Amino acid sequence: MARAIAVSERVRGTTSPNPPVGCVILDAGGEPVGEGATRPPGQAHAEVVALARAGDRARGGTAVVTLEPCNHHGRTPPCTGALLAAGVARVVHAVADPNPGAAGGADALRAAGVEVGSGLLAEEVERGPLRAWLHFARTGRPHVTWKYAATLDGRVAAADGTGRWIGSAESRAESHDLRAKVDAVVVGTGTVRVDDPRLTARPTGPGPAPARQPLRVVVGTGDLPAGARVLDDEAETVHVRTHDPDVVLGELARRGVVDVLLEGGPTLAGAFTAARRVDRVLAYLVPRLSGSGAPAMRDTGVSAVAGAVGMVVEQVSMCGPDVRVSAVPDR
Amino acid sequence: MARAIAVSERVRGTTSPNPPVGCVILDAGGEPVGEGATRPPGQAHAEVVALARAGDRARGGTAVVTLEPCNHHGRTPPCTGALLAAGVARVVHAVADPNPGAAGGADALRAAGVEVGSGLLAEEVERGPLRAWLHFARTGRPHVTWKYAATLDGRVAAADGTGRWIGSAESRAESHDLRAKVDAVVVGTGTVRVDDPRLTARPTGPGPAPARQPLRVVVGTGDLPAGARVLDDEAETVHVRTHDPDVVLGELARRGVVDVLLEGGPTLAGAFTAARRVDRVLAYLVPRLSGSGAPAMRDTGVSAVAGAVGMVVEQVSMCGPDVRVSAVPDR
Ligand SMILES: NC(=O)c1ccc[n+]([C@@H]2O[C@H](COP(=O)([O-])OP(=O)(O)OC[C@H]3O[C@@H](n4cnc5c(N)ncnc54)[C@H](OP(=O)(O)O)[C@@H]3O)[C@@H](O)[C@H]2O)c1
Ligand SMILES: NC(=O)c1ccc[n+]([C@@H]2O[C@H](COP(=O)([O-])OP(=O)(O)OC[C@H]3O[C@@H](n4cnc5c(N)ncnc54)[C@H](OP(=O)(O)O)[C@@H]3O)[C@@H](O)[C@H]2O)c1
Repeated sequence: MARAIAVSERVRGTTSPNPPVGCVILDAGGEPVGEGATRPPGQAHAEVVALARAGDRARGGTAVVTLEPCNHHGRTPPCTGALLAAGVARVVHAVADPNPGAAGGADALRAAGVEVGSGLLAEEVERGPLRAWLHFARTGRPHVTWKYAATLDGRVAAADGTGRWIGSAESRAESHDLRAKVDAVVVGTGTVRVDDPRLTARPTGPGPAPARQPLRVVVGTGDLPAGARVLDDEAETVHVRTHDPDVVLGELARRGVVDVLLEGGPTLAGAFTAARRVDRVLAYLVPRLSGSGAPAMRDTGVSAVAGAVGMVVEQVSMCGPDVRVSAVPDR
Repeated sequence: MARAIAVSERVRGTTSPNPPVGCVILDAGGEPVGEGATRPPGQAHAEVVALARAGDRARGGTAVVTLEPCNHHGRTPPCTGALLAAGVARVVHAVADPNPGAAGGADALRAAGVEVGSGLLAEEVERGPLRAWLHFARTGRPHVTWKYAATLDGRVAAADGTGRWIGSAESRAESHDLRAKVDAVVVGTGTVRVDDPRLTARPTGPGPAPARQPLRVVVGTGDLPAGARVLDDEAETVHVRTHDPDVVLGELARRGVVDVLLEGGPTLAGAFTAARRVDRVLAYLVPRLSGSGAPAMRDTGVSAVAGAVGMVVEQVSMCGPDVRVSAVPDR
């Protein structure tokens, strides 16, 4: 399953609205004979890719897959059918499919005589590659990660307003890797006016440039400055003229966006937080003391963050010299 | 040496202006036969306490001590003399004494035929029990730890101004343990006006109440409200009517204060930071998002924190549900 998770990680950002699933086929003797991950929408699911690689060796073997195999005919035939046709004897999945339309895969396989196990590394999958998609399947809303870099005393910009990137080179590099894994990057008109960011994923590591760019989304009623970098043709850009986070998320859901990286600034972050539409906070705390400049989050006044929103720290780690804190709402 | 460090930790907060030193005596066979830590000012140093416990068994043995034994006659006779009189054959210390007056202990011992080693666990001692005292010995200024509790987005108070303690019960308990280990707790008049804190050490653990309370220090030109809790008789309180951190530290040095806990608020923290008088930051980050209320630090306007003060993260850990970050200036 750890291998299936790793395989699925590689396709994150390329599968929405489908889930980034990973699958490993073991032959009857327990040897891995094929692996695969979800192809872009309309193309093969992970199980089908892995079965094709395994060929005849799948017969009597086991399929290890991060998500319960689908049982419905969408843009592609159901994976349960492919698994049965290949003669797989056993299926182990991490998490069940919460989608009423697609669920029932485990039952269908069992009815056909396949042994089905579930729950293996479920938490790792739920918090990792399938997090956004599961959230989307359960709520109908894209999953929002609010990411920001702040000084230890909570400032996200220098006193003069510039805050293009206050984090370290390491955090900056990680932020580009993150962009490459999500479907959309969202900022407010204020950030466009002040920082004029490009919002594209520009990973610095070796390897090819990302095959695709996330959708760039600017939120706010004001016009974008002519010549703003988000208007270049490096990626698609949508300007959503609203102050309502749910209008933004509705528009994004309509476009098949499942995984959203909210990059601020403080006003938009405040609006999403007050609306309880931040599903995860990823803070890069830069070991600096500033005493001035914009705070990480501003109350929008429209709907106050009444008495603060409680969170639970999921993980704390270092990213170069910065402290990385991942937290989720305390529900 | 680890044992000597542990022994010294127990007397932190009771020895200033002397250093909290720990000493373990081993007999000629290497068995521990006595240990001791610095007594309150005017009383015995660690070596003398440990030697008294060891008695005759110290002869031909080893003294393991966190600081180079002193060689001068202050309020007590030099420790080098006591070690020689006891017939100790070997002395191992962690850090050298930076005090020109007291130093030379190692040389004096060597001249008398004692084998002297140094540097054992030096970093642990320098960062730990002797940190404040070494800073004081080197700079003549008390060591300042700025401690605060802020929400993940950097707010130290609720929108209504109240922020008595926004951290968890665990962080709160730790803050009382910290107070018990320092010589003085410092706040601005603003915090007294808004929060009316007692500023005493009230550890919650088992064991006796702290034998002494830190000096309570309030900084600012305004009067304290009549009936303010810092004016009760649970501990001594000084009101320093200035805005200059160096005037505060000068007054504290004069009173034998070596280790200071700066508890804010944001204005005073900004003034100390701008003056480069914060020697360590201890931040308790509470997993909450607020969007309003006082920021952790305010620029005093007098001397701006020009372009932010660079820090290095020393340690990151959890304190109950809160993230604890310890950072020091990047010099
Ligand atoms: N360090 C970091 O991680 C980071 C990241 C991003 C930004 N920043 C800094 O943040 C600063 C910009 O702050 P900002 O708050 O102006 O940026 P912002 O949140 O990106 O944009 C604010 C604008 O968004 C619109 N908006 C959208 N939803 C809103 C709502 N619910 N309520 C009110 N307005 C809403 C408003 O403009 P309309 O008038 O157009 O409606 C508002 O002026 C810059 O200094 C930038 O450097 C830092
Ligand atoms: N969460 C936490 O860790 C924490 C800790 C402490 C406080 N707080 C919060 O902080 C808020 C109080 O903020 P605050 O900034 O008013 O508190 P403060 O920093 O304690 O006090 C500010 C006052 O100190 C005096 N002062 C001293 N040195 C100064 C200088 N260099 N420049 C300017 N003034 C100087 C001024 O009063 P004079 O007019 O008397 O000179 C000033 O009004 C409260 O809401 C409290 O809850 C939170």
